[in-house]
Amino acid sequence: MAVYTEVADQDLDAFIAGYDIGEASSLKGIAEGVENSNYLLQTDRGVYILTLYEKRTKAEDLPFFLSLMDHLAARGVDCPTPLHGRDGVALRSLSGKPAAIVTFLQGRWPRQIVLAHCQELARAMAKMHLAGADFPLFRANSLSVAGWSAMAHSIDGNADSILPGLSQTIAAELAHLEKSWPDSLPTGVIHADLFPDNVFYLHDKGGRSERLSGLIDFYFACNDILVYDLAICLNAWCFEPDGSFNVTKARMMIAAYAQVRPLSVDEINALPLLARGAALRFLLTRTYDWLNTPEGALVKRKDPLEYVRKLRFHQSVSGPNAYGLGAYGFAPETMD
Amino acid sequence: MAVYTEVADQDLDAFIAGYDIGEASSLKGIAEGVENSNYLLQTDRGVYILTLYEKRTKAEDLPFFLSLMDHLAARGVDCPTPLHGRDGVALRSLSGKPAAIVTFLQGRWPRQIVLAHCQELARAMAKMHLAGADFPLFRANSLSVAGWSAMAHSIDGNADSILPGLSQTIAAELAHLEKSWPDSLPTGVIHADLFPDNVFYLHDKGGRSERLSGLIDFYFACNDILVYDLAICLNAWCFEPDGSFNVTKARMMIAAYAQVRPLSVDEINALPLLARGAALRFLLTRTYDWLNTPEGALVKRKDPLEYVRKLRFHQSVSGPNAYGLGAYGFAPETMD
Repeated sequence: MAVYTEVADQDLDAFIAGYDIGEASSLKGIAEGVENSNYLLQTDRGVYILTLYEKRTKAEDLPFFLSLMDHLAARGVDCPTPLHGRDGVALRSLSGKPAAIVTFLQGRWPRQIVLAHCQELARAMAKMHLAGADFPLFRANSLSVAGWSAMAHSIDGNADSILPGLSQTIAAELAHLEKSWPDSLPTGVIHADLFPDNVFYLHDKGGRSERLSGLIDFYFACNDILVYDLAICLNAWCFEPDGSFNVTKARMMIAAYAQVRPLSVDEINALPLLARGAALRFLLTRTYDWLNTPEGALVKRKDPLEYVRKLRFHQSVSGPNAYGLGAYGFAPETMD
Repeated sequence: MAVYTEVADQDLDAFIAGYDIGEASSLKGIAEGVENSNYLLQTDRGVYILTLYEKRTKAEDLPFFLSLMDHLAARGVDCPTPLHGRDGVALRSLSGKPAAIVTFLQGRWPRQIVLAHCQELARAMAKMHLAGADFPLFRANSLSVAGWSAMAHSIDGNADSILPGLSQTIAAELAHLEKSWPDSLPTGVIHADLFPDNVFYLHDKGGRSERLSGLIDFYFACNDILVYDLAICLNAWCFEPDGSFNVTKARMMIAAYAQVRPLSVDEINALPLLARGAALRFLLTRTYDWLNTPEGALVKRKDPLEYVRKLRFHQSVSGPNAYGLGAYGFAPETMD
């Protein structure tokens, strides 16, 4: 569940009074999400999402996240838009926590991933990358290669309790990635957490067509290598529930991305390494959470071993052809 | 949290198609509630609550609960109303579970109880008791005096791990209640779980007035002694966070109830005993849950010791005057 902070009636009233959205008629905690307290807020004017930022989201990063949503929404990216109070301020305080209200996004994240989801996602991600090009704020990715060593250190000695040899797997992979991580690929603002539960779709009655209605949860967004975002999605969207890699989804996802934002040969060639990095990043955080989630916590721990298997897959590939990218298979204009 | 069952997109579409409510545009799990999976469902026609009944709610009892909501709503009691499908049926099936959609109720349960909440609640409860008088279905209260012995038995030997001497406290109280439980007080349909989180209010901007917008969660409703419902509420609403009993809230709650449904002397005199029974009932279920909630479960366990303290308070009183009922203090027409 994802409601850590209770909101008193009087506090809510005073908070809502700072906006021009009428009076609160209902506030229900939302069970999804694990980082912050999310409420569905109804007023006589409409439906909104109220978020109280818990300690894992750093308060000093919040202006970056909220400004980014404003920036992207203004450029036609489908995402929640922060509401600004009567005084023009979006980031406020409620029940002792930083808090903001954002617009409500129709749709639902997909429980079963089909090809159309991957394509729609890739197009929206590429559009977001383009729209972020002139975003004036900067936030380093604390969960990228420079931060992995400290994360690996913090779980060292305990990782083997999850899987014998896991510490050694992590150490060896980390050494390889630190040595090989690319430093000349195009960078910009990435979402960095585009898992299926952060992407909403509306589908027709028969479930035949899937239309992306928006991206949510920008609270890991940062400046990093743009195609690293795509590598995260290869991991998050293209493995089937049985653990097998769906090369068709990967190929179509990359192709759909490149239709909106053409990929260079260097970017394509870097995908296997970036996918290994993305797998290690989620392996590290999941392992840390697994080891540090207190018993009885109201958060469902995610399985680290899923990402051991994904890492091993990417370690085993010989090049981007493993993702369905036959030479000149798509976007030939960029593969000269 | 309260989402145990995931709903696949196709299943949701097929389910919604059974109703005349348009198409689903959003479905969000609600963090509140512990017994069933509750979703806030939005369609192009409105907002609804979708509930999937988990195993603790017995499927054979569901027609009683849903019919009761229909019955009460038709008589002006503010509560969710089950939606009936195109075929007239309200109780349906989704994701392998019994499921129903009910109307959405505006308002919010009170985080801080003030006198006005107690009075509004008591009036609504009395109105509900009157409205249930001609409800044609019957459901025994499995969590009343006849069931306590088996419950006490199931936790015997482990209760002392929560509090030394707790088993003996329970056994002695149970013996007293079984011997003294009244059998000639007026009976009818009671809610049996009218805790603050099952009662919604709308308040004005200043938070000065509180208007009850409805009662929810009828999944413990049953036939039992009517004022037993009031005794449950004395426990649930009239103790302050520091454990002290607020006699003013109790007196005003009872008086407000009696304004709508006059109380007999026998009913008033039985209140201390019924309040002991109510305290034991929640002590038993909380103790059972405390001992049987698996580590890491996504449910927040409620403290059994809160109800040990409430039980001891009611054991210590000498009569209904402890609840502020000076002789002929209210409703004199019934105190002849």
